[in-house]
Amino acid sequence: MFYHDKRLQYYTAPERPDPLYAKKVQELIGGTFGEMTVMMQYLFQGWNCRGPAKYRDMLLDIGTEEIGHIEMLATMIAHLLDGAPLKTQEEGAKDSVIGAVMGGSNPRDTITNIIASSMNPQHSIVSGLGATASDSVGFPWNGRFIVASGNLLADFRSNLHAESQGRLQAVRLYEMTDDPGVRDTLSFMIARDTMHQNQWLAAIEDLESSGLETTPVPSSFPQDLEKSQHAYQFWNHSKGEESAEGRWAKGPSMDGKGEFEYVANPEPLGEAPVPPLGEPRLYTTNEASKPPMSIKKDS
Amino acid sequence: MFYHDKRLQYYTAPERPDPLYAKKVQELIGGTFGEMTVMMQYLFQGWNCRGPAKYRDMLLDIGTEEIGHIEMLATMIAHLLDGAPLKTQEEGAKDSVIGAVMGGSNPRDTITNIIASSMNPQHSIVSGLGATASDSVGFPWNGRFIVASGNLLADFRSNLHAESQGRLQAVRLYEMTDDPGVRDTLSFMIARDTMHQNQWLAAIEDLESSGLETTPVPSSFPQDLEKSQHAYQFWNHSKGEESAEGRWAKGPSMDGKGEFEYVANPEPLGEAPVPPLGEPRLYTTNEASKPPMSIKKDS
Amino acid sequence: MFYHDKRLQYYTAPERPDPLYAKKVQELIGGTFGEMTVMMQYLFQGWNCRGPAKYRDMLLDIGTEEIGHIEMLATMIAHLLDGAPLKTQEEGAKDSVIGAVMGGSNPRDTITNIIASSMNPQHSIVSGLGATASDSVGFPWNGRFIVASGNLLADFRSNLHAESQGRLQAVRLYEMTDDPGVRDTLSFMIARDTMHQNQWLAAIEDLESSGLETTPVPSSFPQDLEKSQHAYQFWNHSKGEESAEGRWAKGPSMDGKGEFEYVANPEPLGEAPVPPLGEPRLYTTNEASKPPMSIKKDS
Amino acid sequence: MFYHDKRLQYYTAPERPDPLYAKKVQELIGGTFGEMTVMMQYLFQGWNCRGPAKYRDMLLDIGTEEIGHIEMLATMIAHLLDGAPLKTQEEGAKDSVIGAVMGGSNPRDTITNIIASSMNPQHSIVSGLGATASDSVGFPWNGRFIVASGNLLADFRSNLHAESQGRLQAVRLYEMTDDPGVRDTLSFMIARDTMHQNQWLAAIEDLESSGLETTPVPSSFPQDLEKSQHAYQFWNHSKGEESAEGRWAKGPSMDGKGEFEYVANPEPLGEAPVPPLGEPRLYTTNEASKPPMSIKKDS
Amino acid sequence: MFYHDKRLQYYTAPERPDPLYAKKVQELIGGTFGEMTVMMQYLFQGWNCRGPAKYRDMLLDIGTEEIGHIEMLATMIAHLLDGAPLKTQEEGAKDSVIGAVMGGSNPRDTITNIIASSMNPQHSIVSGLGATASDSVGFPWNGRFIVASGNLLADFRSNLHAESQGRLQAVRLYEMTDDPGVRDTLSFMIARDTMHQNQWLAAIEDLESSGLETTPVPSSFPQDLEKSQHAYQFWNHSKGEESAEGRWAKGPSMDGKGEFEYVANPEPLGEAPVPPLGEPRLYTTNEASKPPMSIKKDS
Amino acid sequence: MFYHDKRLQYYTAPERPDPLYAKKVQELIGGTFGEMTVMMQYLFQGWNCRGPAKYRDMLLDIGTEEIGHIEMLATMIAHLLDGAPLKTQEEGAKDSVIGAVMGGSNPRDTITNIIASSMNPQHSIVSGLGATASDSVGFPWNGRFIVASGNLLADFRSNLHAESQGRLQAVRLYEMTDDPGVRDTLSFMIARDTMHQNQWLAAIEDLESSGLETTPVPSSFPQDLEKSQHAYQFWNHSKGEESAEGRWAKGPSMDGKGEFEYVANPEPLGEAPVPPLGEPRLYTTNEASKPPMSIKKDS
Repeated sequence: MFYHDKRLQYYTAPERPDPLYAKKVQELIGGTFGEMTVMMQYLFQGWNCRGPAKYRDMLLDIGTEEIGHIEMLATMIAHLLDGAPLKTQEEGAKDSVIGAVMGGSNPRDTITNIIASSMNPQHSIVSGLGATASDSVGFPWNGRFIVASGNLLADFRSNLHAESQGRLQAVRLYEMTDDPGVRDTLSFMIARDTMHQNQWLAAIEDLESSGLETTPVPSSFPQDLEKSQHAYQFWNHSKGEESAEGRWAKGPSMDGKGEFEYVANPEPLGEAPVPPLGEPRLYTTNEASKPPMSIKKDS
Repeated sequence: MFYHDKRLQYYTAPERPDPLYAKKVQELIGGTFGEMTVMMQYLFQGWNCRGPAKYRDMLLDIGTEEIGHIEMLATMIAHLLDGAPLKTQEEGAKDSVIGAVMGGSNPRDTITNIIASSMNPQHSIVSGLGATASDSVGFPWNGRFIVASGNLLADFRSNLHAESQGRLQAVRLYEMTDDPGVRDTLSFMIARDTMHQNQWLAAIEDLESSGLETTPVPSSFPQDLEKSQHAYQFWNHSKGEESAEGRWAKGPSMDGKGEFEYVANPEPLGEAPVPPLGEPRLYTTNEASKPPMSIKKDS
Repeated sequence: MFYHDKRLQYYTAPERPDPLYAKKVQELIGGTFGEMTVMMQYLFQGWNCRGPAKYRDMLLDIGTEEIGHIEMLATMIAHLLDGAPLKTQEEGAKDSVIGAVMGGSNPRDTITNIIASSMNPQHSIVSGLGATASDSVGFPWNGRFIVASGNLLADFRSNLHAESQGRLQAVRLYEMTDDPGVRDTLSFMIARDTMHQNQWLAAIEDLESSGLETTPVPSSFPQDLEKSQHAYQFWNHSKGEESAEGRWAKGPSMDGKGEFEYVANPEPLGEAPVPPLGEPRLYTTNEASKPPMSIKKDS
Repeated sequence: MFYHDKRLQYYTAPERPDPLYAKKVQELIGGTFGEMTVMMQYLFQGWNCRGPAKYRDMLLDIGTEEIGHIEMLATMIAHLLDGAPLKTQEEGAKDSVIGAVMGGSNPRDTITNIIASSMNPQHSIVSGLGATASDSVGFPWNGRFIVASGNLLADFRSNLHAESQGRLQAVRLYEMTDDPGVRDTLSFMIARDTMHQNQWLAAIEDLESSGLETTPVPSSFPQDLEKSQHAYQFWNHSKGEESAEGRWAKGPSMDGKGEFEYVANPEPLGEAPVPPLGEPRLYTTNEASKPPMSIKKDS
Repeated sequence: MFYHDKRLQYYTAPERPDPLYAKKVQELIGGTFGEMTVMMQYLFQGWNCRGPAKYRDMLLDIGTEEIGHIEMLATMIAHLLDGAPLKTQEEGAKDSVIGAVMGGSNPRDTITNIIASSMNPQHSIVSGLGATASDSVGFPWNGRFIVASGNLLADFRSNLHAESQGRLQAVRLYEMTDDPGVRDTLSFMIARDTMHQNQWLAAIEDLESSGLETTPVPSSFPQDLEKSQHAYQFWNHSKGEESAEGRWAKGPSMDGKGEFEYVANPEPLGEAPVPPLGEPRLYTTNEASKPPMSIKKDS
Repeated sequence: MFYHDKRLQYYTAPERPDPLYAKKVQELIGGTFGEMTVMMQYLFQGWNCRGPAKYRDMLLDIGTEEIGHIEMLATMIAHLLDGAPLKTQEEGAKDSVIGAVMGGSNPRDTITNIIASSMNPQHSIVSGLGATASDSVGFPWNGRFIVASGNLLADFRSNLHAESQGRLQAVRLYEMTDDPGVRDTLSFMIARDTMHQNQWLAAIEDLESSGLETTPVPSSFPQDLEKSQHAYQFWNHSKGEESAEGRWAKGPSMDGKGEFEYVANPEPLGEAPVPPLGEPRLYTTNEASKPPMSIKKDS
């Protein structure tokens, strides 16, 4: 069960409204790597967690923190949208079809017109100058943005990745404004992202050192069941061999169980496929003279 | 530019059709972590890559390989769907509304009826017993499943995560069938996933050792611009302290730049937010007696 | 900022697993009117609320409660999925293509086969027998399911509607199981839905009696700006006049400002539209001899 | 079966094109509460209706009217897009990378450039200056926007809410233009929304007075099957008690069957959940030493 | 403006309910090529049409007809869902976890259980045994399924294709049932699809013979602006030359303006791309020693 | 299996960056008729093809070519985004809320501000100035954009339509820029679209002349099973008879099997539907006095 404290985890209000920046901040709420994603991902991972209690508790702690991050950003967006212009200025050249829509050489009008024209229209029409559950182009957050697989190493790697993309995006947004209030709030969130990247790296170390899971995920699958001769080969699917220069092309594999091999000119191991005959009642097009199905098998 | 060889990278045909398993295999084609995802993700990362040529080439090599993985799975699905039943058997008890739909105590009919009832209906109606660009519940693959941020460490972590989820799902599907042909093909793909997990771990090491990027991503953002006092704190947002037991709660941080700190009873640092007044022309509900906007700032 | 208590708001475990019922319960988590919807809708409405503090506080209270409802249902789903069968039983008639897939006249096998065939495949492949952020057909929850318009009467009506659909669906699911544990948990949630329907009716009364908003929403828009002669007419767009028998067809209007009028044989008030000429550089098909744009206006 | 009259229900053409306003008007066609929603929602409710004929007829009447509303708005959008600029003006400073793209101090050019830059690009590329089945950010209308549950009170409340959001959005768009033609057409649609809000309120009264349904929906579910001790409690999930001040916190409940109760300091009624053990063949992470499943039940 | 006649265009009721077939019929309502698609596509094309009046009128006629096709199918689905089982039968082996869920060797129970398990769960939970605006896997219809480009030849080809896929799917569904009532209704719809395929072929002929548009669409684009040396070449991107055997590989081109040419061993005409340097403030990974941007151009 | 050549099929770099044009070019990558669509559609059709080898090979050849078209456009977008402005210029009028955001009468600043305001924000925040898998409004490409039905005539018609819409959009984009580099690259792609329209027309001729399929698709369905009396009728669903003037209204039908007939005043052939009674356990609203289900059938 959950409780709410009316105070924000951290917040400095923007010095000035900026409706266009509000549009961009939506990416941090409802984008693929926004706060709705990490909140929902950590909560579902916690609820689905069968592992040791410390992981479950940790997942729910951080998931609960992230709800408050949406709250901070929603507050920021409301402030950034304050007093946003609702329409372009009608003045200036009225002698032509287009010219009549808006105009004037007054720089203030030009500014207003640019803002009114480029805002997210749903910020005025739908939400009345409030945040929405969407990203910076207005696409809604959705449940396929998250994963909770029950395998903690797979999921911790997902979390590390989400915090990496998330901090990258927060930093980019930091660079895209000069407002000290916005930057102050973001500098707190960026610090939390630093923690959370460290946290997932620590959780991966914790989990791997506990022996519960390691590379390759899932590590308890018997590796003799896989085609091990292909488990450490890099296949060069292009002309040119720049890809031979990386760590992945030679030396011991990262899991310590093999040796990287560079296959410079890979050839297919299978044959050209023989599709089954079509089903007459489904009216697929079929080769009339085709012989009965004879699928060749790999030996 | 791309070229095609009609032979498959690897393939053993299923011994027997299994339309219900075909439905499940769709997850590996069009699911969040299916082959369409890794193919598109690696290709877009390659096309967007500004980094050293070896990374770009490597990304495009593996992206090109993954196109062939979709091809293998699409072939498998066509074979699994061969001869799928199109309707339930009408016989048996005809004396009641429901009973009349299908029936009979013949086990063969029961089997047919279960299959006909539980298949993905689009496998017959839409694709004529072929693969679709959807996951195991028929939800279509979409472009928000991938990321190509231009920051290679963020993206390599995403790739490591995708291959971890992907191998996990392939292994689960391996456990969900006894067909030797299907298992043989999957055992090749699982081996490639083993390689690809190792490959991304190697790429991460390669990139970090080159000095181009490290934790926290993006590492070139000046850390004095973030609220560093909060950059290594774990906030315990719940009652109970199981989460204090993990590696993330104490000791040096993973990036070597700080010390983890466990905040057992965190308090908000901000104040309760004061939203701006509503915009009359948008007809939002407003507190009549509300004073002019006065946003308190964090000091 | 938010806090978590590890205990559930209310919970009785299912007596027995039932993976097919787990699939259906997803509707209450990630469906259009599931708990993710009411949680997110109330929180965003609270964060966007400019109105009197009691509304904002009330919205955030109930939004916070709803997070815990997702938690209860996610727990229920994990219990319902416990021990779910991963594959069909291979025995019985092996003398034909289909017959060989699964079979046997053993009722136990038949049961297992039905369950294994009809489960949500993502419950095994993707989430490892845990809940997902999707509805009962696997479609993901998304941000367009919610609204937070800033106009409280519009939004309270939305909330009343969501709780009505939500309680209806919970009651239907109650009827679709005999498990006493599941029914006990649902009976708590249904009671909360009863409260929440009452709560929104009360909030509507509270708001209307405060004079802040009334019918028609938004009530502060000057009604002389609308075509008032059409503001209380029912247009009968079909042959036959059964629709004349309802309260909406005669008598004083509900807002007390007009009188319902039944227009039995409505005629269009406008003319056939005259579309503008196509733009040559967009290569639209155009009537060659078409005269210059002359749009007739309503007088 | 349906018929078409080429004349519009009502229409006054815009005085002047305004491609940016056309982008916004899309919200009224394909947005969550646009005309496609009400049209489809009423038609499906009518087709699914088992109730008295007057409701079925009324639903199909209004659904049929709404098709014509899409028609009016599509016509408006074509007129607003007439002569829209397809590219920015190339003149002015050509001495730098950015400067060369477009420029000039001519206000007319600036206006053209703003319009060409901020239009919905699909209005030119995809639809050739015509309306699309999308909202104001280009997100497509979809079938999850509607509901037809078969329970008429639940659905009438949905309709009341849709018309409230719809009128709110139409009024906001009215405020966002000065074009007399657009305003005239909108003033008709706003009047129809006034009627439709009244209509649904009347339909609710009609239905409740008929005894077919009342609060709480669905009212025929035996209330002794719900945990009635929690059916009228407001749980205060936050610090502070502003939420105690509303009608929902005290006094008789709206359904006349209970008394509101304010629970100032709610405690969880359930226990911390005990998740079942993981399934080994799904490779979820599991606590090694975990005892067999023992789910405690609420007594 | 539109009108409704309560009678259906054509209809024969199903002889017996069949809830699983109801699930499949949804494809014809809300699938990519279902009736919602053709209805909306033709109406939007009509509303956007600038061409001769006969096209506009014809488009709106057929679009109006299609609304009634949704109506027929929604009625069929309600009949097919009549009396659908809401839960599985609880009897039989109760001695194990799974066995206890449902069972019994009674064939009637087995039938009921299969139906209850494989139905679209939203048909009971969400719509109360009515049709929904979704396809056969429950994915909602959406506005990206349609196109109305303003170029009539492009759009008529789209319509021809939609009717081809639509008739194919209707025929497949015809084969998937033995119910005489369902088949009778479908046989009417299939006949209409026959007409509509003929209609679009006729419309294409009509349009081409009028000189308004021909191949390649859009035909008024000056062909000397395209790289005409590549306008009739087939590039063989694979090993093997089976693709040389078709009409597309030799002989005069279909537009009568060129000669097909088979390029057996195509080579890239461009160079390897040189991406621009990364933007430091976006923290993309960049090759340190990379020279300034120098994009080679094709000569 | 697939291979990559680092060289592009064709490419001329843009002369100058143009971030707003980059936003528009996304339509050609991830739009409904973008290169992702044709690539995936042709590959899936090839993989699902049971027909003669020449069709399968041809489909995979062109599908493979299209991968390279995405590559060309992704390269173009990176060049167009080079040096894109990340924020608006803060200067000029600072004496008011809005004025302070950005301003200045410097035309260069105005240009920069327009660009920074109207760019796709994900091009900076998400992809770091690279292409994304989305269309021109940021909506992601998805698997429902493609079809591979197994019936080649249905699918070739789909392909013809896709290339028609695709060339139309490419030509529109050609008109929307003056950049010689962009136009040169597009002129190659437009030529390929010319070929591909011709190719599909040729493939249709090839298929029809082979006797495998003809109009109406699917042609092997026995036409005596359809209601043939309605198979060549045009129903005039509107007042006015402009639609009688087209080729579709009179003369022999295009398939040579019938004669077009114009039904000027069509009447419904069915009756008003009688929906079945509601299911009490689903709490649908029901007419109390309703007689038992009696569905009238068409005779």
